[in-house]
Amino acid sequence: MRFFSDNAARIHPQVMAAIAAADTLDTAYAGDQWSQQLDGRLSALFETEVAVLWVPTGTAANCLALAALCPPHGGIVCHRDAHIQNDEGGAPEFYTHGAKLFLADGDGAKLTPATIRTVLDAIPDDVHRVQPHAISITNATEYGQVYRPHEVAEIGALAKERGLGFHMDGARFANAMVHAGCSPADMTWRAGVDALSFGFVKNGAMSAEALVFFKPELAAVTQYRRKRAGLLLSKGRYLAAQILAMLEDDLWLANGRAANQAATRLAAAAGDRLVHPVEANEVFLRATPDEAAALRAQGFDFYDWAAGEIRLVTAWDTPVGPVDQLADAIRAL
Amino acid sequence: MRFFSDNAARIHPQVMAAIAAADTLDTAYAGDQWSQQLDGRLSALFETEVAVLWVPTGTAANCLALAALCPPHGGIVCHRDAHIQNDEGGAPEFYTHGAKLFLADGDGAKLTPATIRTVLDAIPDDVHRVQPHAISITNATEYGQVYRPHEVAEIGALAKERGLGFHMDGARFANAMVHAGCSPADMTWRAGVDALSFGFVKNGAMSAEALVFFKPELAAVTQYRRKRAGLLLSKGRYLAAQILAMLEDDLWLANGRAANQAATRLAAAAGDRLVHPVEANEVFLRATPDEAAALRAQGFDFYDWAAGEIRLVTAWDTPVGPVDQLADAIRAL
Amino acid sequence: MRFFSDNAARIHPQVMAAIAAADTLDTAYAGDQWSQQLDGRLSALFETEVAVLWVPTGTAANCLALAALCPPHGGIVCHRDAHIQNDEGGAPEFYTHGAKLFLADGDGAKLTPATIRTVLDAIPDDVHRVQPHAISITNATEYGQVYRPHEVAEIGALAKERGLGFHMDGARFANAMVHAGCSPADMTWRAGVDALSFGFVKNGAMSAEALVFFKPELAAVTQYRRKRAGLLLSKGRYLAAQILAMLEDDLWLANGRAANQAATRLAAAAGDRLVHPVEANEVFLRATPDEAAALRAQGFDFYDWAAGEIRLVTAWDTPVGPVDQLADAIRAL
Amino acid sequence: MRFFSDNAARIHPQVMAAIAAADTLDTAYAGDQWSQQLDGRLSALFETEVAVLWVPTGTAANCLALAALCPPHGGIVCHRDAHIQNDEGGAPEFYTHGAKLFLADGDGAKLTPATIRTVLDAIPDDVHRVQPHAISITNATEYGQVYRPHEVAEIGALAKERGLGFHMDGARFANAMVHAGCSPADMTWRAGVDALSFGFVKNGAMSAEALVFFKPELAAVTQYRRKRAGLLLSKGRYLAAQILAMLEDDLWLANGRAANQAATRLAAAAGDRLVHPVEANEVFLRATPDEAAALRAQGFDFYDWAAGEIRLVTAWDTPVGPVDQLADAIRAL
Repeated sequence: MRFFSDNAARIHPQVMAAIAAADTLDTAYAGDQWSQQLDGRLSALFETEVAVLWVPTGTAANCLALAALCPPHGGIVCHRDAHIQNDEGGAPEFYTHGAKLFLADGDGAKLTPATIRTVLDAIPDDVHRVQPHAISITNATEYGQVYRPHEVAEIGALAKERGLGFHMDGARFANAMVHAGCSPADMTWRAGVDALSFGFVKNGAMSAEALVFFKPELAAVTQYRRKRAGLLLSKGRYLAAQILAMLEDDLWLANGRAANQAATRLAAAAGDRLVHPVEANEVFLRATPDEAAALRAQGFDFYDWAAGEIRLVTAWDTPVGPVDQLADAIRAL
Repeated sequence: MRFFSDNAARIHPQVMAAIAAADTLDTAYAGDQWSQQLDGRLSALFETEVAVLWVPTGTAANCLALAALCPPHGGIVCHRDAHIQNDEGGAPEFYTHGAKLFLADGDGAKLTPATIRTVLDAIPDDVHRVQPHAISITNATEYGQVYRPHEVAEIGALAKERGLGFHMDGARFANAMVHAGCSPADMTWRAGVDALSFGFVKNGAMSAEALVFFKPELAAVTQYRRKRAGLLLSKGRYLAAQILAMLEDDLWLANGRAANQAATRLAAAAGDRLVHPVEANEVFLRATPDEAAALRAQGFDFYDWAAGEIRLVTAWDTPVGPVDQLADAIRAL
Repeated sequence: MRFFSDNAARIHPQVMAAIAAADTLDTAYAGDQWSQQLDGRLSALFETEVAVLWVPTGTAANCLALAALCPPHGGIVCHRDAHIQNDEGGAPEFYTHGAKLFLADGDGAKLTPATIRTVLDAIPDDVHRVQPHAISITNATEYGQVYRPHEVAEIGALAKERGLGFHMDGARFANAMVHAGCSPADMTWRAGVDALSFGFVKNGAMSAEALVFFKPELAAVTQYRRKRAGLLLSKGRYLAAQILAMLEDDLWLANGRAANQAATRLAAAAGDRLVHPVEANEVFLRATPDEAAALRAQGFDFYDWAAGEIRLVTAWDTPVGPVDQLADAIRAL
Repeated sequence: MRFFSDNAARIHPQVMAAIAAADTLDTAYAGDQWSQQLDGRLSALFETEVAVLWVPTGTAANCLALAALCPPHGGIVCHRDAHIQNDEGGAPEFYTHGAKLFLADGDGAKLTPATIRTVLDAIPDDVHRVQPHAISITNATEYGQVYRPHEVAEIGALAKERGLGFHMDGARFANAMVHAGCSPADMTWRAGVDALSFGFVKNGAMSAEALVFFKPELAAVTQYRRKRAGLLLSKGRYLAAQILAMLEDDLWLANGRAANQAATRLAAAAGDRLVHPVEANEVFLRATPDEAAALRAQGFDFYDWAAGEIRLVTAWDTPVGPVDQLADAIRAL
């Protein structure tokens, strides 16, 4: 059983059905009836007017957002373990035309106003230094930690104070929201977020993420950038339909809840082995190479992480049986 | 009935079935069993070793190819009506980091060695001038014209003589191949082509194009560029499966043939109105605004083109009935 | 005697003296007393508040200006014979991160509102097309033609109407101003110009051009871009001092006048051979290869231009004697 | 007396004389007799065939070198206190089109094979991670430390082992060479260096640095990049003449020696206050804010560095008297 990542999970049947239902001739690009619904549907969800662009990957969503918030000669504060720094092959630099990522610290890949300030305060305001223009956080983080709305708001306040844009990488936004239990509005724009990469692919979609701008004027220019990046699929209706299906009856939350619950079962078995508290769908636990090998010998696949650590990721479709078997195997180590 | 473009057509049922069949957990990105088959399948089709990357759009395919063939400080010769010049929102400049497109002439958007030479010979070899590094042609062209293998080979010989890379935008490669009736090898690498954007989206796929490198080493570096551009979908298996389905039993040729035949029926009705001979699935014909309005009043939708011209595009799924009705309506003008 | 170009002329003695006078320890970069005077001196000259950055080349001035006026995904209308299109090695694309140059026509490399409109009107307002964001003209043009203030103002009005930035490449601004005989203000910001590359190198300086922003906020961001481009010389005082010396007692105009007068003497000799009226310091004339050879045999050096044409360029320091000898030689052809 | 930096020092009289001597009409750009001598003169100095480009700033030299060694999608290992990381306003990212700088540790801003390996070994070889393509070191470092030839060679061997390019920022190469006392060849290409930014501006020149390629083919492509960056001054002879003057009779070494000796006198006075051993022309010493104020009250100007540290920089022209006065003042603290 695979616990490598949620990014290879299957497509939820309702999403697949929505794709099939969109299989009719309509206007190309984003002119179809599905794409045209996105702004309205997500404005309702976020309780404010938003402008939304579908894109096929989370990297694309993140980097279009960063390019909207930071000029080529600027910089972006992010955690040193952030996906945009380590796992996107330099896409932030490509999309921003060479902006610099300033790396900040924080437990569990979470930034705090203090760790951000440490970075900002070390940058004198002169032309020799790349100046910060934005902050990017990931929620849930790369280590499965969830920012609460007040934590986001504190960073948002700092961003506003310093005149910086504020982006949230929500590749696992559903998992974060399930844990936080607040409204999407409280987690984002009410806390100062300007742009959200609202992830669906890890959560049951096939190939659609929503880039949500809480300042709609940022979407206007990003439309051009999306096209320029080769991201404007001609049959965009199949992407929009996925997103609409994920929003229908809060499927996104139901899927996130399923993934989180599976991770929680593993966490319960892991006890003292846990490296981070389990707040979303990722479980990091200490395991010797022998222990890791023992788990693999029982048919469980996963990534080694730092030395003496392994990472287990659950998804919306991770079946209960194997989860419980893995939990038992962990207890038996 | 819509004759706007083939880029909004439906998905062929066999492609949809292939997507559904790929809906099982597998390795992410391009590590899955479907993606892993692409090199082999396309090497067989092209009778030589090729390296293939799936991408979600033709623009992405074209521009990754151009970036592989031209440095940031170089230039690319293309037709002044080429898609890369007019319809990709500056994506070639984005992907190449600012290479310049040199615009050449030619009837029906076809380049010839002579028109390319005119451009090349006007560029002195000094550091003040952007130097040409590549040639890009479109087959079938933006006006539905088809390069024959010997025409491609003449351009390929010129490219070799001048040390230039050679790219073919094959967004409508199927339509071209149906018309030319030659082998894919003769149309491409045997004629000197280094990279082909092998289009499927206009021809029955949902969101997958194949970027085919006849020099596999170009694919190695392009793997990094694809990721960096946010184009490496985590569930790449759904893209690879589409391509494999299109190749199965030459579905791509069957679909291209259907589209071409529909266009041919319209052409037969158009007679002297034709602006270009109809060789693929696009029909350009002279029509006054009143005539265009008359067609629209009968329920036919299409784009106005140059003054006094309209464009009709057929696709794999354009039903015979409406085609014949439109043909009759054209005759009746 | 060399009539190749004014860009290799000597340094005016007053400029050389100013360089020597600046040879004292002062603050680095642009913090020195000379650099600090530029805004004031040029604000006085232009009768409005301007913000000025010195740079070492005209290409740098032009391209920093373009980058300030056009985003990476935008385009700039210029003449198809413009220096930025043909002679800057792709620097506009580098500095703008890939903006596209839209090429317009016009006699003598002069744009007109009509030729600009032809370009603009051919670009539909959709995301598939690079959208125009700026216009760039050259005064005097590459063919030595001078825009009069009202001609600039007509283009400025068009720029304003379409929401476009407006740049003037003034590599030979002095030569243009001598011919036009108007105020610098009338030729620039009063006519709608946002940024001027005010050239001195061709006119007696060694290595300093002034990039003049009539919207000072554009200079603020360009300060960062200048540094980022490696153009912020640490000993900037030697550049600022050159500019100040050129402005002192209108040396720039005196030098421009000298060059123009030399060209006028050649023009008088050329008669019907003239390809363009001579308004600045460039003389284009018809000459057969034999005639060109005959001139060269007498010791005159110059560039062949289009077939059957040669170009003669005079500079501030072109001595009268050789000019008259060349004039005689032309008459004698 | 100013001890801020060597980058604002005066021009050496022999350099000024060389500028004046170059004030004659010659070919533009790099076609003049001075520019044409650079390859030969520096090949002799380095005892191997090199190809040399003059540029007006050290930032330009560094970043053209990096762009020659690293593709846009790659990365460069440098010290976290390197000039290219902190003091060039993002120029490396601009010139490389978005390459990433990987920050390594080391005392006194010196990298070691071990600290470089720590960085390299943390980067898995997959498309999701930016891959390292080059190493850049600074000699003398930002803290005035000098790499010895064997230290450079160890890094060069690592670069070769990993297939990485190797750049040396020699903004203070003269100061390093004076200290090391070895041949320029031993310090550079024999130790594996591919490209050297050979600095002259901090050492008595006005506006000329030499970018030296030990692989001449890298210079060929960089010629285009230099032009494209707006760095190809039309009157390049004045830059080349500066470099030639600095090389004449080893003026560069004499100047470097003068600066180093002044620093050594300050170091002798500083005793236990020294933060780093003084090997070049920079003196970092511990001083409380009160002590710093006391020095300033005596007329000495300098930068505060880290908390409780000040930086004193000497130059070729720092007069002995003030140096000794400052030394006395330090002793008297």
